[in-house]
Amino acid sequence: MTGEFEAIERLRRLLPSPPAGETWIGDDAAVVVAPLGGLLLASDLVVAGVHADLSFVGLDDFGWKAMSVNVSDIAAMGGDPTHALVSVAGPPDIDLELLYEGIAEAVDAYGCPVVGGDLSSGAQLVVSVAVLGDAGSRPPVLRSGALPGDTIFVTGPLGSSAAGLEALREGRGHLVPALAAAHRRPIARVAEGRAARAAGATAMVDVSDGLAADLRHLADASGVGLALDHVPVAEGASLAQALGGGEDYELAFTATNAGHICASFAEAGLRQPIAIGRCTADPAERTLGDGELPSAGWQHQWA
Amino acid sequence: MTGEFEAIERLRRLLPSPPAGETWIGDDAAVVVAPLGGLLLASDLVVAGVHADLSFVGLDDFGWKAMSVNVSDIAAMGGDPTHALVSVAGPPDIDLELLYEGIAEAVDAYGCPVVGGDLSSGAQLVVSVAVLGDAGSRPPVLRSGALPGDTIFVTGPLGSSAAGLEALREGRGHLVPALAAAHRRPIARVAEGRAARAAGATAMVDVSDGLAADLRHLADASGVGLALDHVPVAEGASLAQALGGGEDYELAFTATNAGHICASFAEAGLRQPIAIGRCTADPAERTLGDGELPSAGWQHQWA
Repeated sequence: MTGEFEAIERLRRLLPSPPAGETWIGDDAAVVVAPLGGLLLASDLVVAGVHADLSFVGLDDFGWKAMSVNVSDIAAMGGDPTHALVSVAGPPDIDLELLYEGIAEAVDAYGCPVVGGDLSSGAQLVVSVAVLGDAGSRPPVLRSGALPGDTIFVTGPLGSSAAGLEALREGRGHLVPALAAAHRRPIARVAEGRAARAAGATAMVDVSDGLAADLRHLADASGVGLALDHVPVAEGASLAQALGGGEDYELAFTATNAGHICASFAEAGLRQPIAIGRCTADPAERTLGDGELPSAGWQHQWA
Repeated sequence: MTGEFEAIERLRRLLPSPPAGETWIGDDAAVVVAPLGGLLLASDLVVAGVHADLSFVGLDDFGWKAMSVNVSDIAAMGGDPTHALVSVAGPPDIDLELLYEGIAEAVDAYGCPVVGGDLSSGAQLVVSVAVLGDAGSRPPVLRSGALPGDTIFVTGPLGSSAAGLEALREGRGHLVPALAAAHRRPIARVAEGRAARAAGATAMVDVSDGLAADLRHLADASGVGLALDHVPVAEGASLAQALGGGEDYELAFTATNAGHICASFAEAGLRQPIAIGRCTADPAERTLGDGELPSAGWQHQWA
């Protein structure tokens, strides 16, 4: 067995070291230089058996996912992730090194170092991440700024993660590697969020619970209607998975000037976002084509 | 059953609302005004059955404790807690309102609002908190700055929490209410940390794992020896509990000018800290009176 402090020291070696003037892992709190702009703060946790089935999702994937879902929340504001805190509770036989390998890959991919956290025993593996982000000098993109007439965009086709999960559950993940990867290694769309914000996005949300549910949140917060023309379904996924599956971590956003958005994405060298409909003046409207937008979406249940 | 979003809305009503210009619970990330000084970041989680036995610690106490252990990490840098994120995983029958009542009391006591977080199902109750703190304009107090000759202080007698836990386990918590309260509602010493820093404390740590273990961390980080004259034991506690029990959340700190410390605490209207020994030039020295300082202290164990 290894003591907590030795384990922390071992894991610290997997992670980048602080620049001069900052103190990261190893003191009571990390000391970091404040971003120049407004601060963004987000915290999400992932639970083994709830957010991922570790019989077909690796511990490294699980660590990656814990980071990505948090970075995605910063991306959904149009901000830049700057620092992460990672706290882990789990059984003593968990392969912490493998978990932190995935975390370290995400640190590298997102340029978001882990500056502190906690390790504790627990019956079930829980990885709780908090991310600090830089909002820059202008206000970030909230959920509440959409206006009637705005175009609704998503940054890519949806349903890959849910289709990948289904395939992995049925033991055919190896036949659809792109879908399996979408479930195991979701990617936060930081550059896309930045491009959308730079081009005047009025409201934005990440597709974590499912497009239908997440767009409803955006429309509820903005007091606008939703009239979707179509939903882009990822190859190999179903419409139901695209609408309700969630965990795609694409961004959905609204903009008054659609041309600015397309130009901004082109300039940043990003795949063009997909226009899927528009916001309307009737805050009760929630339509997809000629029908009602389904209310599908994932929620944890409480007494 | 209640959905996650309705539960979040219900809990939000227990907590303070944001000032103009800030966005707290309800968007993808919270937007807050950055503190003027350096930033402090800390994250600790508490696990039911590991950090507290819920058969004699209330859910409100558990919420209070989750906040206090994090605020204590900011206090141990001499900083001020400014914002918290609270993420909870637990079974669907957990009384979230009771948990958040304790959290809300801590928010109020420490002036540290909850600005975001997460709710998830999970087999075991885990409350993970991240706290942002203001380090002010001068460098905060690290563990690594103690010098040979410095006086070592603690902010109060130790062992209350461990003695309280023992009494609660034996069903006689009602006979020693102060000790039981020390275990159920530990208090982070924010004003004491501030006073120690203002008076030139060279190194500081909170007593979370046990005085012996925590002072060893400080001495290891500073490269100094420890020569303790005595350890102040709380009434009703044993020396072993004071040295190894942990969870007292008093602060231990070092200072070159002991007189400045006493004056600073007096000026702030705080109980005088207790001088317990001094730092020495031999980094291998770890003594208490004529003997060796025990190495007692709590660590989670990992494979």
